[in-house]
Amino acid sequence: MINVGILGATGAVGQRFVQLLADHPWFRLHTLTASERSAGKRYADVVNWRLDVPFPESVGDLTVSPTTAEAVKDCDIVFSALPADVAQGIEEDVAANGVGVCSNASSHRMDPDVPLVIAEVNPDHLGLIDVQHDRGRDGFIVTNPNCSTIMLTLALEPLRTFGFSSVQVATMQAISGAGFNGVAAMDIYDNVVPFIRSEEEKMATEPRKIMGSFDGSGVEMAPFSVSACCNRVPVIDGHTLSVWVDIDRPLDEVRKAFLEYAAPFSGLPTQPAKSVEYFDQPDRPQPRLDRNRGRGMTVSVGRLREGVRFTALGHNTIRGAAGASVLNAELIYMKKYL
Amino acid sequence: MINVGILGATGAVGQRFVQLLADHPWFRLHTLTASERSAGKRYADVVNWRLDVPFPESVGDLTVSPTTAEAVKDCDIVFSALPADVAQGIEEDVAANGVGVCSNASSHRMDPDVPLVIAEVNPDHLGLIDVQHDRGRDGFIVTNPNCSTIMLTLALEPLRTFGFSSVQVATMQAISGAGFNGVAAMDIYDNVVPFIRSEEEKMATEPRKIMGSFDGSGVEMAPFSVSACCNRVPVIDGHTLSVWVDIDRPLDEVRKAFLEYAAPFSGLPTQPAKSVEYFDQPDRPQPRLDRNRGRGMTVSVGRLREGVRFTALGHNTIRGAAGASVLNAELIYMKKYL
Amino acid sequence: MINVGILGATGAVGQRFVQLLADHPWFRLHTLTASERSAGKRYADVVNWRLDVPFPESVGDLTVSPTTAEAVKDCDIVFSALPADVAQGIEEDVAANGVGVCSNASSHRMDPDVPLVIAEVNPDHLGLIDVQHDRGRDGFIVTNPNCSTIMLTLALEPLRTFGFSSVQVATMQAISGAGFNGVAAMDIYDNVVPFIRSEEEKMATEPRKIMGSFDGSGVEMAPFSVSACCNRVPVIDGHTLSVWVDIDRPLDEVRKAFLEYAAPFSGLPTQPAKSVEYFDQPDRPQPRLDRNRGRGMTVSVGRLREGVRFTALGHNTIRGAAGASVLNAELIYMKKYL
Amino acid sequence: MINVGILGATGAVGQRFVQLLADHPWFRLHTLTASERSAGKRYADVVNWRLDVPFPESVGDLTVSPTTAEAVKDCDIVFSALPADVAQGIEEDVAANGVGVCSNASSHRMDPDVPLVIAEVNPDHLGLIDVQHDRGRDGFIVTNPNCSTIMLTLALEPLRTFGFSSVQVATMQAISGAGFNGVAAMDIYDNVVPFIRSEEEKMATEPRKIMGSFDGSGVEMAPFSVSACCNRVPVIDGHTLSVWVDIDRPLDEVRKAFLEYAAPFSGLPTQPAKSVEYFDQPDRPQPRLDRNRGRGMTVSVGRLREGVRFTALGHNTIRGAAGASVLNAELIYMKKYL
Repeated sequence: MINVGILGATGAVGQRFVQLLADHPWFRLHTLTASERSAGKRYADVVNWRLDVPFPESVGDLTVSPTTAEAVKDCDIVFSALPADVAQGIEEDVAANGVGVCSNASSHRMDPDVPLVIAEVNPDHLGLIDVQHDRGRDGFIVTNPNCSTIMLTLALEPLRTFGFSSVQVATMQAISGAGFNGVAAMDIYDNVVPFIRSEEEKMATEPRKIMGSFDGSGVEMAPFSVSACCNRVPVIDGHTLSVWVDIDRPLDEVRKAFLEYAAPFSGLPTQPAKSVEYFDQPDRPQPRLDRNRGRGMTVSVGRLREGVRFTALGHNTIRGAAGASVLNAELIYMKKYL
Repeated sequence: MINVGILGATGAVGQRFVQLLADHPWFRLHTLTASERSAGKRYADVVNWRLDVPFPESVGDLTVSPTTAEAVKDCDIVFSALPADVAQGIEEDVAANGVGVCSNASSHRMDPDVPLVIAEVNPDHLGLIDVQHDRGRDGFIVTNPNCSTIMLTLALEPLRTFGFSSVQVATMQAISGAGFNGVAAMDIYDNVVPFIRSEEEKMATEPRKIMGSFDGSGVEMAPFSVSACCNRVPVIDGHTLSVWVDIDRPLDEVRKAFLEYAAPFSGLPTQPAKSVEYFDQPDRPQPRLDRNRGRGMTVSVGRLREGVRFTALGHNTIRGAAGASVLNAELIYMKKYL
Repeated sequence: MINVGILGATGAVGQRFVQLLADHPWFRLHTLTASERSAGKRYADVVNWRLDVPFPESVGDLTVSPTTAEAVKDCDIVFSALPADVAQGIEEDVAANGVGVCSNASSHRMDPDVPLVIAEVNPDHLGLIDVQHDRGRDGFIVTNPNCSTIMLTLALEPLRTFGFSSVQVATMQAISGAGFNGVAAMDIYDNVVPFIRSEEEKMATEPRKIMGSFDGSGVEMAPFSVSACCNRVPVIDGHTLSVWVDIDRPLDEVRKAFLEYAAPFSGLPTQPAKSVEYFDQPDRPQPRLDRNRGRGMTVSVGRLREGVRFTALGHNTIRGAAGASVLNAELIYMKKYL
Repeated sequence: MINVGILGATGAVGQRFVQLLADHPWFRLHTLTASERSAGKRYADVVNWRLDVPFPESVGDLTVSPTTAEAVKDCDIVFSALPADVAQGIEEDVAANGVGVCSNASSHRMDPDVPLVIAEVNPDHLGLIDVQHDRGRDGFIVTNPNCSTIMLTLALEPLRTFGFSSVQVATMQAISGAGFNGVAAMDIYDNVVPFIRSEEEKMATEPRKIMGSFDGSGVEMAPFSVSACCNRVPVIDGHTLSVWVDIDRPLDEVRKAFLEYAAPFSGLPTQPAKSVEYFDQPDRPQPRLDRNRGRGMTVSVGRLREGVRFTALGHNTIRGAAGASVLNAELIYMKKYL
């Protein structure tokens, strides 16, 4: 068993990490960190479990550590659910200690030698781990993208072969994407908020790095543009996207590409049966009905129409955050980067 | 005072008509129609008033008539809140009786000699009333567009001078747009439904007729395309739109166009101070906060960014339905078409 | 394996029956009935699956039968998710054919020789099956109570030993309790509806039959009164109850009774680890966090205060409907009534 | 015109005070206070207006003052929307300066010489102002009750003549009652929270002081008990209450008492036509439809049944907070306590 830790284990993404790792077949939860005032206490006593899945009792007795590099130095892999500003330095220190970091934080996503990975889309970018080693980092940092970027990029992956240069996307993002306390009820109930800080900028750049080409030393950004309009809507979990992509092919071919898409690997524990699932029903996918497909790891696609337009959706704190990180770690392990 | 009637006065749009006309300075509510089983009863006794504004007591004593052309033959103007299939024949019969019909139904919107009018955008199209008279119709039919089309087209009107050929729009539409019973709570709560029947088709065609050129005998469709993705979201009132339009101008000029826009007329009772209101705040407009601007008749615009992208919103059953019809009627009256 | 059928397998409760029975260790889904126009088609083709758990693919190929007694005559047990007016006659016909009916419908609940059973509360009332046999019915009808009654009565069961004569309860009931199309979004969003037809009457009578004494031939109603105020609130699943009961005991004893309560049997597949789970946290139970405890079969209790007041909640379409029926059937099978 | 100020003018209750006072016929908004960092700036520039009524432009140019007694010393009346801990000392200092304080804060509600007033229920308690003067306070403090207490007590007032000794009430309280940021969306969406800190304690004591008897020097608590279960539900504005009261009278008499109730005074600007409005419809009152009756100042009552049980509701930040305070101030002015 691989010993793993979670930096920031009590927040919305942190709790999803705990949920996904509590009974993991390869990884053993060894260290959970939280704020200074929680350190030293039982995890069960400090976490305010707010997910609608049962609290995994097996984890309750772990003693919470402070969020420091020192605290996780005995782990093989550390998952980071830290806010970007806190993550920056700590993740570097953890990696300097020879530990592998799989981070959901945005701090290092655009670093030239840090892979920004969606396991199914650009597994080869993990080669940047060697670049990090070469310049003297004992461990490594691997990042996963922003939640909306993951839904968009995974939905575009089956279409990569057609080529495209311009993507437009309007998002309808769930409340949980802002963390447990990120959105006040008075601000979102019976409402849409057409603004999510930094989100459109991330969607404009991250997909281009993920779909960029890796030449053994660095990543060249893919030559397409993403123009995003990001909106918060009154949905608990699940980001829904209306997408336009300039593909000039018959819809039948596009549909076939979605239907025939398969991940380039198999056998990873967190991997869903279908990473991308296509619907012919006219009114699908829908977040309440489809966010939990593939235990939250499937991106659902439907409403394919001329344009080319389609709808995509996925579970933002599983496929779009903790699950993406865990799947990356499984791939790293399988590829023997540990 | 002009005597007016409402066809279908008990539904979601019908009640909005009643709200707007109960104390109108020019129009007097003379006839309210509803289904056969309500006919002959007091309006107050048959309506299940479900708006969050008080029931206008002055209207309660009106005796409900059956929904027939005969019932409204003494009216000068009749507002139609009927479903499209029912509206088709009745509206023609009403107009044949010499009565003017201002209809929110979709049945006649694309008829060549029926004006499809947003009062501020294409008041000249009312000239088609004369075309209807010329071919022997004693009264007339004037229609207003689909709710989403109104928000989009009114938001585009200030930009018409720049020219554009391609519009993309993702809508986040309110529950009330489907009528009081159109959406089951189980289907929309904690959910987004990425499909509204016929909505995308209407948005693709109606704006082109509204912004088309009228030459005295007919309307030539404007030469731009609209590609829409229509979504239902858990909001009670107010449609929000993420819009892209291919205008290649500095944002400052676009912003100025929004700020300086003024309606081509003034003094109509239902007309808001600003038909289009522009926001510089980064997170506006929002439906709960802005749908009631201008007593529900203002289209709010904001989040202007490169692309050109922006957000637009308006109250779907006021600006997007009953209020649009009433404003059209006021314009018709002012222009002496009665 | 016992062959089972579901009368009305496409509605909100019908789909829960399918979910619970698709992989049942003792029962095999043999017959699914629906309306005449669905008959003869594959279940997967006629059901509009609207639960947020995946559709059980194994059931999809079953051919739907019409809702008649004939259609289910080869089943050993038939679960009824029919509306009360339809259920009345069909259930009697099914039972006359020698089949056992476990019904969620209200039609026969108060029949003198039909047991109204919550498995953990009054398993002995199943003795009424013999009374039915004695008067010539080949099969039998066993009913489970109204959803709110189940939450209330199961929460009161641990306190039965203290004795009480008066119960007051305000319910906050979920949307799904009215079926998929029972509540329009416009009527419940941002709202509370303080009325649910017949609900308060059921809560006043059903708990008294359930907690009544069975003497081998009939049930004597328990001597307490229930005064209920039933409200619909904007919650998808899970009924929450504020309960007062006139028990004059120290809170410690009441708390202990909740904590120490155990079901009078064990080993039934649908039975949760705890039928009643007690919380000391001041803000629990909550429907979104606690409705799925015990796979939806646990009634959660908390906020115990002087009065005696407490909060109770449970999943209304699982514990309060389909799950209650299935647990009854398991008990019937274990007790060899088949 | 009377000069008035608002302590804490930017929060949920503060904004309601601004809304109600912006165009008041007797009172002129003279001073708005907020936190230190807002002081010195235009109100329009510091307030994040989050009400769904338009921002009153006339107030926008007022310069915000810091929240100190000094800042409001030129006002005749000061309304307090401060949190209880902050309000305690400042309100005393303001009153010491000879200014009248009408406070929505809970700090002084139970002080022996501070009247806790619902204008229609216990106007005579304002006599405690003289008691305050007698013991040397130049100004005065008058408080209004907790929001839920107001709905309950005003609904009980028409029944006072019957006498009662025991009240039980389950509340379903709106999100806005906790302030703009008091409830995270993740905590209340699709949920009920059966706990609101200190709320049940306030409901147990405040109604007894309000309905207590004033003998010229102090208030004797009324001899009845209130047992409350307070719940938060996903409603924006409007508290709904299920109430039991031990009145042993025919329902007809109780109904008549509700119907015939009239406030003991008339002509106050904020006073609604009916302080208590009774509904015979079986499913009313409902918060979304009825909270704005009487411009938010009416308490609606309905669903009267044996028990005696009924439903009551009112707008929590208008009738239950800012409006209650303003109505008290109007009564104080009319009674010449200024």
